[in-house]
Amino acid sequence: MSKTVVIHSGGIDSTVLLAKLVAEGREVHALSVDYGQRHRRELVAAEAICRYYQVPHQVADLRALAPIFGANALTNQKVAVPEGHYEEVSMKATVVPNRNMLLIAVAGSLAMSLQASSVAYGAHSGDHAIYPDCRPEFADALDRALRLADWHEIILERPFVGWNKTLIVQEGARLKVPLELTWSCYVGGDKHCGRCGTCVERREAFKLAGVVDPTVYAS
Amino acid sequence: MSKTVVIHSGGIDSTVLLAKLVAEGREVHALSVDYGQRHRRELVAAEAICRYYQVPHQVADLRALAPIFGANALTNQKVAVPEGHYEEVSMKATVVPNRNMLLIAVAGSLAMSLQASSVAYGAHSGDHAIYPDCRPEFADALDRALRLADWHEIILERPFVGWNKTLIVQEGARLKVPLELTWSCYVGGDKHCGRCGTCVERREAFKLAGVVDPTVYAS
Repeated sequence: MSKTVVIHSGGIDSTVLLAKLVAEGREVHALSVDYGQRHRRELVAAEAICRYYQVPHQVADLRALAPIFGANALTNQKVAVPEGHYEEVSMKATVVPNRNMLLIAVAGSLAMSLQASSVAYGAHSGDHAIYPDCRPEFADALDRALRLADWHEIILERPFVGWNKTLIVQEGARLKVPLELTWSCYVGGDKHCGRCGTCVERREAFKLAGVVDPTVYAS
Repeated sequence: MSKTVVIHSGGIDSTVLLAKLVAEGREVHALSVDYGQRHRRELVAAEAICRYYQVPHQVADLRALAPIFGANALTNQKVAVPEGHYEEVSMKATVVPNRNMLLIAVAGSLAMSLQASSVAYGAHSGDHAIYPDCRPEFADALDRALRLADWHEIILERPFVGWNKTLIVQEGARLKVPLELTWSCYVGGDKHCGRCGTCVERREAFKLAGVVDPTVYAS
């Protein structure tokens, strides 16, 4: 059976993606990326989720790229994490430059090493406004590049690109995904802060989805 | 003036590329990638060349990705470097999986950090047969992805994609590039071995170009 490398952050989107592929009977290999994010808690979450699904999990260590990334709130401790709604302009400070191309490139390397036939990632429509590299046309271009990068074709799967986060939470509930194991908060404390952009978005998605939110928020 | 991030290996192609952009009066920022290559001598060469051209030079450290790359001759000491002609099938062992997408992704991150307007890389027609990610259509797809990866458009320049190595050496001679500073050999000794694929290709290119080869070969 052909393998798929799933880019797995430990958040809701990529966890539901992983669960969906497992439910379809696919052979899945999860890849998380350590790019020095201050919310390192998400890597622990990713590990626990892969253990739950009994899926192999690898962490690509890109921490040495910090000098390339420059100043941004996710990797640089000196830049404050913005509070408020996820789609606001202030959230741009959370962008790791060219993150999705990097993640997909590393996943492509792993896919070639493992002779996998695809890479899957969980970009969804709610991301488009703030992250240019979550737009469908970006994914289309990278899909084409990935198919051409090796003699053996690898495709880029992005089943959620037309979905919003509410739909993803509903799909997670339908698939009985242990969403309490996922991690969203960008601040990186012991509990979800409840106030940063991703926490606000997470709370809202559960509410709109009509799914009980299992998350313990600090406030 | 707008900046360009040049992917610079310390070899002939990327050095002539760098020299060409400098000669055009462009503001250039060089990026080398340390992916654990056994021919680490090329990083030293890259540094010397950037000093010669007084161009800022940064090394992206991807050595921690070794577990992702798996077994190949460039990064794994247990795999022998093949001898013979560069375009032969045996050279496939020298491929770092998805290398060009990775290099371009990292260069894209740096370009965004520096607010540069392009990334340039030196893929040429002689590479196409052996490296799928040196093909023009691969570059076209990644150019499109790079333009979409940020709100601020970044283009992928690849002026040598239709050139062969002979033409590149001739261009280097015309621009009085200190080609003796460049490094090609994959074996990674003190001198160019003269027998590995890139040494064979290097010798041949100087000969066909009618340019005196300044390289000292071990055999």
